[in-house]
Amino acid sequence: MQLYIGNQNYSSWSLRGWLIFAQHDLKIEVIKLPLFKPEFYRTLEKITPTAKVPTLVDKQVEDEDVVVWDSLAILEYINEQYLEGSAWPTDPRQKAKARAIACEMHSGFTALRNEMPMNCRATRHVELSQNALNDIARIDQMWSQQMNDYPDEWLFGEWSIVDAMYAPIALRFQTYQIPLSDLARQYQQKVITSPAIQRWLYEASLESDIVEEDEAGEAI
Amino acid sequence: MQLYIGNQNYSSWSLRGWLIFAQHDLKIEVIKLPLFKPEFYRTLEKITPTAKVPTLVDKQVEDEDVVVWDSLAILEYINEQYLEGSAWPTDPRQKAKARAIACEMHSGFTALRNEMPMNCRATRHVELSQNALNDIARIDQMWSQQMNDYPDEWLFGEWSIVDAMYAPIALRFQTYQIPLSDLARQYQQKVITSPAIQRWLYEASLESDIVEEDEAGEAI
Ligand SMILES: N[C@@H](CCC(=O)N[C@@H](CS)C(=O)NCC(=O)O)C(=O)O
Ligand SMILES: N[C@@H](CCC(=O)N[C@@H](CS)C(=O)NCC(=O)O)C(=O)O
Repeated sequence: MQLYIGNQNYSSWSLRGWLIFAQHDLKIEVIKLPLFKPEFYRTLEKITPTAKVPTLVDKQVEDEDVVVWDSLAILEYINEQYLEGSAWPTDPRQKAKARAIACEMHSGFTALRNEMPMNCRATRHVELSQNALNDIARIDQMWSQQMNDYPDEWLFGEWSIVDAMYAPIALRFQTYQIPLSDLARQYQQKVITSPAIQRWLYEASLESDIVEEDEAGEAI
Repeated sequence: MQLYIGNQNYSSWSLRGWLIFAQHDLKIEVIKLPLFKPEFYRTLEKITPTAKVPTLVDKQVEDEDVVVWDSLAILEYINEQYLEGSAWPTDPRQKAKARAIACEMHSGFTALRNEMPMNCRATRHVELSQNALNDIARIDQMWSQQMNDYPDEWLFGEWSIVDAMYAPIALRFQTYQIPLSDLARQYQQKVITSPAIQRWLYEASLESDIVEEDEAGEAI
């Protein structure tokens, strides 16, 4: 299997797709493309209709590759094909809640995403809009509630697709120095200190490209 | 089960969630709330953290309700709990492709969604940005490709979650009189003339509320 990703310092959707492989020690060939550069589009346009990362190519079958060109679709695919469904909670009620929370991330939090682009190596200060502050409050409340139900664990106890969806948020809250309530900070620290994220951050630290579009705020 | 939806004339996400019940003749109590009105938020804030429609409440189990507050999460839930997975293609390769296409809709096409809000009863003309035109071109190409693979059928042969995700687009293309290629128009007509959509349009026609935010373009 091959996973196309963008610059690890900046590409939050790539991190979401990549994390399930790292977390479950699944073998994957990672192909890194420089975001917004001609090479990025030249390569992806040949394999996907949208030319975005992450994109998974699974040479599972002889006649035709499986191509999956969206983070959530990749996570669902890997969960079903290689993890026997274990990357969602087992209880249907918890699974439904986990899916709704994953979908909130997949379709929303646009103010937060625009105003606080992922930038692993930076420490910044940004003035945030009310919408971005609301996004932060919603995530703080969600993380706190889950940490209340599952102290010191992942959002739904065992690691799940929801943790992949929110991992870039934990990194952004660090970059932009966002104050969090105690339980939410506990979860943020669990994410950041996990071996998979530490490996991502290490690999990001080896990069030197600057993506101007994602350099928001003032350095602290 | 209860499904909270918004005004049927305007609420495209509600239509996506509702369609799987109509298409599969599943029993559901529909509770319609007036979009953006105090009553809308007052009701939803008690049951969901996001106060958006569609929201499903399933009183399946005695001790606690299952609450699902996102269209895609509702579609996945109903598919798994009540349809034995039949609302996705059976072949894993087709299923992965269908999920990626559903996820494109769930997370994207923002220009099209902003500039051409769903408005079932209207016929309008709008000047579109290049981004919205690109969104239309991508959907035309996708529908055409699927109609080429499955002539006269749903996007993946049997009706699937993807058809729920794109149904509001078929209605918008009608409202805003968007020219389509032949195969894409064939699919659009199949959607619009289907009994479930005809029922939705009939119910929408009984509404009289005007939601100013969704009244884009000039009447034709
Ligand atoms: N909904 C997609 C979003 C993917 C996405 O927007 N990826 C960004 C990088 S983080 C990208 O490829 N941008 C390039 C472009 O938009 O031209 C997903 O969940 O995978
Ligand atoms: N990602 C959500 C989007 C739901 C959504 O935005 N629904 C709109 C109506 S179509 C809504 O509830 N708007 C009220 C608001 O945003 O205050 C889903 O897929 O269900």
